Formats: sequence, structure tokens, C-alpha cells
Amino acid sequence: MDRNLKIGIIGLGLIGGSIFKALCKLNCNVFATSKSASTIKKAKTYSKNVSKSIENLKNCDIIFVCTPMNKTLLILDKLNSLLTKKTIVLDACSLKKFVSEKDYNFKFIPSHPMAGTEFSGFDNSFETLFQGAKWVITPNKKIKKTDIDKVKEVIEILGAKVIKSSPEDHDEAVALISHMPMLISQALFKTAKENKLAMKLASSGFRDMTRLAMSNTEMASDMIDMNDKNIQAAILNLYSSIGDLLNNDYEKQIKKIKNDREQMYVNGKNLY
Amino acid sequence: MDRNLKIGIIGLGLIGGSIFKALCKLNCNVFATSKSASTIKKAKTYSKNVSKSIENLKNCDIIFVCTPMNKTLLILDKLNSLLTKKTIVLDACSLKKFVSEKDYNFKFIPSHPMAGTEFSGFDNSFETLFQGAKWVITPNKKIKKTDIDKVKEVIEILGAKVIKSSPEDHDEAVALISHMPMLISQALFKTAKENKLAMKLASSGFRDMTRLAMSNTEMASDMIDMNDKNIQAAILNLYSSIGDLLNNDYEKQIKKIKNDREQMYVNGKNLY
Repeated sequence: MDRNLKIGIIGLGLIGGSIFKALCKLNCNVFATSKSASTIKKAKTYSKNVSKSIENLKNCDIIFVCTPMNKTLLILDKLNSLLTKKTIVLDACSLKKFVSEKDYNFKFIPSHPMAGTEFSGFDNSFETLFQGAKWVITPNKKIKKTDIDKVKEVIEILGAKVIKSSPEDHDEAVALISHMPMLISQALFKTAKENKLAMKLASSGFRDMTRLAMSNTEMASDMIDMNDKNIQAAILNLYSSIGDLLNNDYEKQIKKIKNDREQMYVNGKNLY
Repeated sequence: MDRNLKIGIIGLGLIGGSIFKALCKLNCNVFATSKSASTIKKAKTYSKNVSKSIENLKNCDIIFVCTPMNKTLLILDKLNSLLTKKTIVLDACSLKKFVSEKDYNFKFIPSHPMAGTEFSGFDNSFETLFQGAKWVITPNKKIKKTDIDKVKEVIEILGAKVIKSSPEDHDEAVALISHMPMLISQALFKTAKENKLAMKLASSGFRDMTRLAMSNTEMASDMIDMNDKNIQAAILNLYSSIGDLLNNDYEKQIKKIKNDREQMYVNGKNLY
């Protein structure tokens, strides 16, 4: 990675904060903005180039927009009047179709780092969050290979692996592995909560199955609203899988599922 | 606990093996049986009183039957001709109604330790498995308080907390927190497996939600067969929770769920 690159970050929550801490640690040329005075104060202990105004990022080569999903289009519009066509801008939203539908002056590469925890905010961000993670990018055909390569180098230095996809395929896939499972996790907790003995007896299995029910509620709400069609389809597929499991040789099917699942993650890392 | 008590264990898998290792560590008077010659060999490094025959347990004061659920009634029948009415026998099955329906010569206390991992067998058993766990007992009215107290002391020395319940309430509760969530975990994996990009992008959320899909398949099959009515009811309740979440102020509901879930487990331990 070219160490002279000026890298900007807008929003210093879990994702933006983790990118920021990792790049500061690597002595990169980082410029960040946050709307929170207390976050700015904390972030200044890592780098002097932290401020409230996005004007601060005007001369950056690459900018990561890491604001909540429902603020992202507004920020991209603001950047449109601030930046020239030489700047590369990435977002970090967990949906890719809605950000891909507009043209911008700058070079826009929609992206989604597949990493997170149930905690949010700068205090919970950490420099190794992206180690071993996948990072989806969904560039359109106008983006040049040299620009994609530049972005790849930054993402790889954060420890992640770049996966190219279309926005539509991405949104369908995350409904299956992230949005629908989160909804199920919330519904599982809501269902068991009605039974006092169940809550008393719940152990590690229920704990793991309901961890996603502690997801950031603003983000969860955005996902459910904005990816509703894919989530509905995923729920129907889940219902049909449940029926298939119960009605067609359960034990044979779960032996295959157990075997496939055991081969998927090794030491917690997805080998696919 | 009276250290002169002779404690028997039948079956040295994850549960029986963990009871065995814990009691050996505490220098208790332990007698164990296993049908596997290699397990007997390994177990003999902990205690000399390990053999293939259940005759070995004839003079025990308390016996834990830790065989697979579908073998347990058979073992209880065998014990019926071996033991007198002074012996206390507990099982460890994850369902309690089906074992509670018959009368035995011995004092039978149906029980269920609420602890486990996705791994099975003696090699994966460990002496601290029950630390902080709940352990359900569902004694009928004929069992005397002094016998229940004797059993409690053994369970507590293993690190678990005794919860008394009826067999019916127990089976309904475990459908909600254990059996139905396991089925959902298996169905989630089966559903996402159809989408290659989804499998590639899956991260820690999907990993946690599909851990139970690696449960022991023999045990899973028994649970689904033998607790089918409670599981069906739990699935219908889950579907109705999903509908309620999606149709009635999602964000307000998940804020409450998040808050309740955060207060439920502290450092991984269920505080209910």
C-alpha cells in the first residue's frame, strides 16, 4: 500500500473506529470526522487529524463513510459537492443496492466489511476487528481496475479479504446469514421470555442463539426495513427447511448438516 | 456431602464422564460402568472401580444413569431387578415425562443437568462442566425430603444448582430454550447452504446461530421424536413472535428484547 495515501474516515463507531485505530497503528496518513465531541477527544489521542467538519477530508485519496445506514445517502450527497472525481469513496453499509442507485462526482465503491460484534461505538471498536474477515465490494463497470486495486490494498492491510459481488446478490446473501438470523434470534428470546421456568433453565445453547438479539437496534431496524423482500424470502425458505427436516428423514439430514457445519469453521474462522 | 456415600455412574459420555471426573477429583467413592472397552481403559486412570457390568454398582447408595435417551428405560428396567428400595437412582435425560411414567423398586429421581457442549464422549467430558449450571429434578410425591437432600448435596458438590419442577413443565421449557432452537439452528444452516455467496460471507453471527447444528445427532433425533408436541407448539409460538415483531413497532420491541437479554447473562452466566 502506498503510505502517502491520505485516508479519510467519516463516523467513528464500531466500524469506522476500528478502521481508524488499525490505520493509526500502522502509521498511515489518517483523517477522521465524528459528530460527537467526546469521540473526537478520545480519537485525538490516536491522531491529530480528527475534527467535526467533513471539510477536513477534502484532500483525501480514499474516504470510508462509516455512518449509520439511514444517514449514509445524506453524507454521500454532501461529499458530492465537496469532492472532485479523483477521490475514491467507500461506504460500509450492510446493504448495497440502495447506495448503488445514484451517480456521484467521485469514484464510489459500495462496500461492506463482514465483521462486527453486538457492541457499538468508538469505545468498543478495536484495531483487529477485520483480521480474517471478508469485505464485500460491489463496484459498477465505470470503476477502473487501478482504483479497485488501490482500495484492495487498504482493505488487505486491515486484515480482510476482498470479495467482489453485485449489490443484488450481496443483499440476498446477507438476508440469509445475517438479517434473517438476527430476526430469529430476537423472536427466540421473545418466545422463551413468556415461560419463567424456561428462562431459569436456559444455558449456553440459548445464550448463543440469542446473542444477535443484542444487536444495535437502529442498525437492526434499518436492515429489516430496507431489505424486507430478501428477508421475507429467507424466512419462507427457513420455514420450508424446518418442514423438510421434520418430514423427511431428520437424522440423515442432520448428519449431513453437522458434517458440513463442522467443516465450515475451523478455530472460529470461516474456511469457505 | 457424606463422603462414605457410594456413587455409581452408568455411561461415561459427556455427562457421565464429567460427573465421574468431578467426583474422582473430589476423592469420592465412585463406581462406574461403560460398554466401551477403550473408555473403561481411560476411566481406570481416574479410578479402579470401573467395569463393563452394572453388577459392579449393586451396593451403591446413589446411581446416575447417563446413557443415551433411547437406552435409558432399558437400563432402568435392568436396575429394577438388581437394586433394592434403599438405592436412589437418577437419570440424566433431556426429557422428563417419559421416564416418570413407570414405578420402580428403587427410589427414582428423574433429573436433567442443563449443561453440555456440541462435543460428546468421554474424551470431551470435563470435571467443571456443571459449574454454575442448573440441574432439574422432577421427583414424585413418594420420594422423601431426606433423599432429595442427599441428592442435592451431590449435585451441589458438582457445582450445579438444583431446580425442582414437574416433568411436564420441564419438557415444555426445554422445547423453548433447547430443542426448538436446535432445530432452528439446523434449518438456518440448511437454508443458507443453498447460496454460495452467503456461505462465503458468513461471519461470527452465523457461526453462533449454527453451533447447535453440530449437536450429537442421536440425541437430537431422540429429542425431536419424543418431545414433538412441545416442539411443534414452540415453533408455532416462534412464527407468531416473528409476525408480531415485523408487524407491530419492531424497533420498540427489539429495544426491550435487547435490554432484557443484556440483563439475563452476565459473563456468560444465566442470572435468572
